[in-house]
Amino acid sequence: MKLTERVEHARLNHSMSADELVGAMSGCAFGAGRLASAADIYEEMVRDTDCTKFFGLAGAMVPAGMRSIVSELLRDGYIDVLVTTGANLVHDIIESLGLRHFRGTPDVDDVALRADGVNRIYDVFLPEHHFTAFEEKMQSVFSGLGKERLSIRELLSRIGGHIDDGDSILRSAYERGVPVYCPALADSIIGLQAWLYAQKQPLQLDAIADMREFIDLCFEAKRTGAFIVGGGVPKNFIFQAMLVTPKEFDYAIQLTMDRPEPGGLSGATLDEARSWGKVGAEAKSVTVYSDATITLPLIVAAVRARLGR
Amino acid sequence: MKLTERVEHARLNHSMSADELVGAMSGCAFGAGRLASAADIYEEMVRDTDCTKFFGLAGAMVPAGMRSIVSELLRDGYIDVLVTTGANLVHDIIESLGLRHFRGTPDVDDVALRADGVNRIYDVFLPEHHFTAFEEKMQSVFSGLGKERLSIRELLSRIGGHIDDGDSILRSAYERGVPVYCPALADSIIGLQAWLYAQKQPLQLDAIADMREFIDLCFEAKRTGAFIVGGGVPKNFIFQAMLVTPKEFDYAIQLTMDRPEPGGLSGATLDEARSWGKVGAEAKSVTVYSDATITLPLIVAAVRARLGR
Amino acid sequence: MKLTERVEHARLNHSMSADELVGAMSGCAFGAGRLASAADIYEEMVRDTDCTKFFGLAGAMVPAGMRSIVSELLRDGYIDVLVTTGANLVHDIIESLGLRHFRGTPDVDDVALRADGVNRIYDVFLPEHHFTAFEEKMQSVFSGLGKERLSIRELLSRIGGHIDDGDSILRSAYERGVPVYCPALADSIIGLQAWLYAQKQPLQLDAIADMREFIDLCFEAKRTGAFIVGGGVPKNFIFQAMLVTPKEFDYAIQLTMDRPEPGGLSGATLDEARSWGKVGAEAKSVTVYSDATITLPLIVAAVRARLGR
Amino acid sequence: MKLTERVEHARLNHSMSADELVGAMSGCAFGAGRLASAADIYEEMVRDTDCTKFFGLAGAMVPAGMRSIVSELLRDGYIDVLVTTGANLVHDIIESLGLRHFRGTPDVDDVALRADGVNRIYDVFLPEHHFTAFEEKMQSVFSGLGKERLSIRELLSRIGGHIDDGDSILRSAYERGVPVYCPALADSIIGLQAWLYAQKQPLQLDAIADMREFIDLCFEAKRTGAFIVGGGVPKNFIFQAMLVTPKEFDYAIQLTMDRPEPGGLSGATLDEARSWGKVGAEAKSVTVYSDATITLPLIVAAVRARLGR
Repeated sequence: MKLTERVEHARLNHSMSADELVGAMSGCAFGAGRLASAADIYEEMVRDTDCTKFFGLAGAMVPAGMRSIVSELLRDGYIDVLVTTGANLVHDIIESLGLRHFRGTPDVDDVALRADGVNRIYDVFLPEHHFTAFEEKMQSVFSGLGKERLSIRELLSRIGGHIDDGDSILRSAYERGVPVYCPALADSIIGLQAWLYAQKQPLQLDAIADMREFIDLCFEAKRTGAFIVGGGVPKNFIFQAMLVTPKEFDYAIQLTMDRPEPGGLSGATLDEARSWGKVGAEAKSVTVYSDATITLPLIVAAVRARLGR
Repeated sequence: MKLTERVEHARLNHSMSADELVGAMSGCAFGAGRLASAADIYEEMVRDTDCTKFFGLAGAMVPAGMRSIVSELLRDGYIDVLVTTGANLVHDIIESLGLRHFRGTPDVDDVALRADGVNRIYDVFLPEHHFTAFEEKMQSVFSGLGKERLSIRELLSRIGGHIDDGDSILRSAYERGVPVYCPALADSIIGLQAWLYAQKQPLQLDAIADMREFIDLCFEAKRTGAFIVGGGVPKNFIFQAMLVTPKEFDYAIQLTMDRPEPGGLSGATLDEARSWGKVGAEAKSVTVYSDATITLPLIVAAVRARLGR
Repeated sequence: MKLTERVEHARLNHSMSADELVGAMSGCAFGAGRLASAADIYEEMVRDTDCTKFFGLAGAMVPAGMRSIVSELLRDGYIDVLVTTGANLVHDIIESLGLRHFRGTPDVDDVALRADGVNRIYDVFLPEHHFTAFEEKMQSVFSGLGKERLSIRELLSRIGGHIDDGDSILRSAYERGVPVYCPALADSIIGLQAWLYAQKQPLQLDAIADMREFIDLCFEAKRTGAFIVGGGVPKNFIFQAMLVTPKEFDYAIQLTMDRPEPGGLSGATLDEARSWGKVGAEAKSVTVYSDATITLPLIVAAVRARLGR
Repeated sequence: MKLTERVEHARLNHSMSADELVGAMSGCAFGAGRLASAADIYEEMVRDTDCTKFFGLAGAMVPAGMRSIVSELLRDGYIDVLVTTGANLVHDIIESLGLRHFRGTPDVDDVALRADGVNRIYDVFLPEHHFTAFEEKMQSVFSGLGKERLSIRELLSRIGGHIDDGDSILRSAYERGVPVYCPALADSIIGLQAWLYAQKQPLQLDAIADMREFIDLCFEAKRTGAFIVGGGVPKNFIFQAMLVTPKEFDYAIQLTMDRPEPGGLSGATLDEARSWGKVGAEAKSVTVYSDATITLPLIVAAVRARLGR
C-alpha cells in the first residue's frame, strides 16, 4: 500500500470563516475528513451545470430548525428535485401559518405534556392546537382542488401555491418550479387530512403517478447528484429510479447517524448502492456519520462561500 | 426513591430453553431487562383476546432470514394487522418463486459485484436476474387485475392470492385474512413494476384509500397493541391513526438500533409517543435497543413457549 | 462472486432450547448470523485444549446482572485470563458483601437521587452508603498487606482471597487460580480506596509489573483466543501484548454497541486488529453489534449446551 | 409546560465566520442546539478565571488530526489539567519525531496491510517501522531517568521535556506546566516500552501516586469545569475525584458518539453524573452526540473567536 496522503492536523484561529474551518478539516481523518470531502463533492456537484441535483430530506429536520437552510437552497438553485417525508412538509406548513415550534429538554413527563396538549419531537415542542389551524388550511386547499385525479407532486405544488411565506420549503419549491415528491404522503398528517376530506368529498391521489415523471427526470439528466439527509423513503426513492434507467448517480453525499450493521437501507453505505447500479463505479461519494443538524449547516456554509452565493 | 427491585444476576445452565434464558434475563438491567420485559408485554398482549395486534416490519428483515418467523406469526394468530415496507414484500415474493438470497461478508468490492450482476444488502447477496422472474410474476398479476381503482391493501391481497408458497408473508396473510398495508409501496420495486405496467395498461392505485379502513380498525378495537420492528414508515403509520381516534395503544414494543438524540421518528422513544396520545398514559411499553434479527427470534421463541403454540 | 451459502430463514417452535434458537439463527444474516457464528467460534475455542482463553470485560456488566455468568465461566474453565475494569470489580466486591444493586427506570431526577443518596448507572441504582461498607472492607484488606511492592494482579488476588462469596468474580478467579488484570485500577473506587489508605500507610502498587507475566502468558500459549465484551482498556490490553510476541490471536469474538466510524478502539473491527498482527490472518473472528447483556447470555447458554457443562 | 423558547431556523450566508455559523445553530434543536450550547458553556468556563479547566481526551484524536488543536489549547491557557489515553500520547510522540500518519479508506485488505507493515486505525495508516524510531526515543528517555519511583505524571513530564516539537501535546503541556495524567498508561505502547526497559533496568512507575495530587487539584479549585472528548478512562478519572471531595463540577461538556442505553460510562449522560455528585445540581452541562473530530474544531473555533485568541 502506498501511503501518500498525510494527515494534516487542523489548525484553528480566532477569525476563521466557516469555509476555512472546513478547509482545516480537509487533512483530517474520521468524520472531519469525510465532512471536508462532502463539501468538496457538493461544490463540484453544484458547479456541474449538466448535473441534475436531487435532495433527499428525512428526519425531523424542519422541527429542528433546518427549514430556512433548505428553502434557501431551493431559492438559490442548489436543488433541482426534492424528495422528502410528509412530516417535514406538515411542519413546514405549520410554520408558514405563523405557528411556531419550541425548544426544551427531552427529559420531560410525556404524560403531563399530553395533559397540557403539547406534542414532543425529542427536544422540540408543539402545541396540539396548531393542528387545528393546520386542518383549516388543508381543508381549504383541498376544497379548491378540482375532481381530477392528482399525483402527489401535483397536490404538493397546489399547496405550495397557497402558502404565503417565503421561508417555506413548499413555497420556495413552488416559486422556483422545483418538483417535490413525497412517496409516503399518506403516512403523515397531510395524509390524515386527505382522508378526512375524502370522507365527504371526492379526492383521488394516485400512488404511482409520480413515478413516470421522476424516472423521466433521471432518464433526461446528463449527470446526476444526490444529497441525502437522513435516509428513509427519500433515499430509497431517489436511488431506485436508477434501477430502471441506464444511468447511475455521479455524485452522492449522505448525512446520517444510522449504521450499516443492522442491514437497513438508511444506514447502508453508498458503496452498497454501487452493487445495485444506483451509484456509479466512478462516482464521487461520501457518508458523514454525525448529526445532520450540525453537518448540513457546516457543509452548506462552506459551499456557499466557495460559490459566493 | 424507594429501591425495591433487586438486580438478580442471570444464571445459565447447559440445558435451558429459550424461554428460561429470557426468564434468566428478567432480573437484569440494560438490554437484558428490557428484552425480558418485551417478552412479558408481548405475552400479555397476545393473551388479551380483546386486543387488536398490529405488527410493523421495517428494515431488511426478509433478506436477513426473518421471513418464516413473520409468516408463522401470521398463521398462528399473533398478528391481526401487518404494516410493512415494499422492500420486505419484494423479497418475500422473490423467495416465493423459489429464488434464494445468499449470505456472505459485507467486505466486498461492490463495483465487482455490479459487474457480476449481484446486488448486495449488507451481508446478503441477490443475483440481479432474480428480478427478471419477479418482473414476470408481477406483470402477470397486474394483467389479471380489472380496471377498477385499487387500494394498496387490495393489491397486496391479490398478489398474496397468486403466491404458491406457504412460507410467504403475503400468502400467509392472505390465507388468514390479515390485511397488509404498505403506505410507501411506490418506493419499492413493486412500485417500479406498477409504473412499468401502467405505461401500457390502466392501473389505478389510490394513495389514501387504505386510511379509512385502517383508521376504522383502530376505532373498532377494544384494545390495541403494537409490535414495531425497526421504525420507519410502518411505525409512523401504525401510530398516527391514533391521532384521529379517541384511543391510544395499550401495549407497545419496539426493537431498534436507532437512537433518540438525532430526533428522527425511528429512534424516538415510546414515551415521546405518549405526548401525542399515540401510546396511552397507562400503556405497557418497552424499547429494546439491539439488532432485531437477534431480539425478534428470542422474544418470539419465549412467548411461543409460554403460550404453547 | 460465487453465491453458495443460502439464507435459511429461522424457524421457531414453542419448546426449543436456547441452543436450538441460536442454531435457527445460523442460516440468517446481519446480527443473527453473526451471533450464531460467535457461538460456533466460542465453542471451538473452548474445545481447543491448546488454546489459552482471554476474557475482556468492560462496561457496567456486573451492575447489569452479568456477574454470575462471568463467575461461572471462571469456575467451569471457560476463562484462563481475565482482564476487566475497576468498576466491574468494585461492584463485584459490593455484591459479595451482601449489598445489592437495584433496577428501575433511567427517566429519573438525578438531583433528587443525589439528595436521597442514591447513585445511578443507567437503570441500575445503588445506595451511596454501600460504599461505606466497601471502604471498610477495602481498608481491612489493605491493612493486611505487607510492605512489599505489589502488582495490580497480586492485589486483586489478595482481595479475592478475602471474599466469602462463591458468586464473586474475584473469588471464583482466586479459587481457580485465574489471574485478573486491571490496568486502569487507579481509575476506580478501588483506586480511590488505595489512595485513602496510602495517605497514612505505605502502599506500593506497580503500574507496569503485570505486563511481564501477561506477555509471558501470550508467549507461552500454543494458541490464543479472546472473548471481548465491550471494548475499552481490556480489549486494548489483551490485544497489545501480541505486538511484542510472535503470536496472533487465533480466535476473537467481540460483543459491542460501539461503531467503527468515529475511529476509537472500542468500536474498531477485528479486521483492523489484523493489520497490527493482533489477530491472525487465518483467525476465526466475529463482532456482534448488539447489547452485550443480551448476546453474552445467549452465546454462553448455547455453548454450555454444546459442551454439556 | 410553558413554551417560551422558539425554534429559530438557522440562516446561512456565503461569508459567515465559524462563530456566526455556531450562532446560527443556537436557535435550533437536536445536535445543532446542543453544539451551540456547548460553545456557550465552554466560553463561560474559559472566561471564569476561578475555574480549573480539566480536559479529557479519549479516542484516536491525534491520529485523526486533532493534535494541533489540543496543543494550541494547552499553549493558550484553555486547559489546566489534561487526562488522556496512552494511545494519544504514543501518536503525539511519533509525530514529534517527524514521522507522519497517513489517510486512506477503511475499506482495505488488513491482511495485505500486515504483510506490507502498515497498521490501520480506521482510515488512518501508520508504517510499522515508525515504532522502531519510537522505541529508540522511549528507551533513550527511560535511560535518563534516575532510580527513584516515578508517578505517571512525572514520567510524562520528563518525556515532554525531551520532545523538540512545539506542536506536540506533551511538549506544550510541559512548557506551560500543565500536568498530564494517563491512568492506564500500561495499556499502551508506552507501557510496552516501559516493560521492555524494565527487563534490564530498574523502573518503578507507581500506579496510584498521581491520585493524591489530582485530588488535591480538585480540592483546591474554586470552581471546576470538564471538557470531555470521547469518554473512556479520562472521563471516569476526571469525574471520580469528586467522589472524595466536597466539590462537584460546575461546567461539563461531553462530545461522544456513544449512547446511554448499553449502560457503559462513556455513553452515560451528564445527568447520571449528578446522582453521584460528580456534576453539580446547578452545573451547566451538555452532551453533543456527533463525531468529535467535527464538533471539537467547530466549538473551539467559535470560542476562540469570542475570546479573540
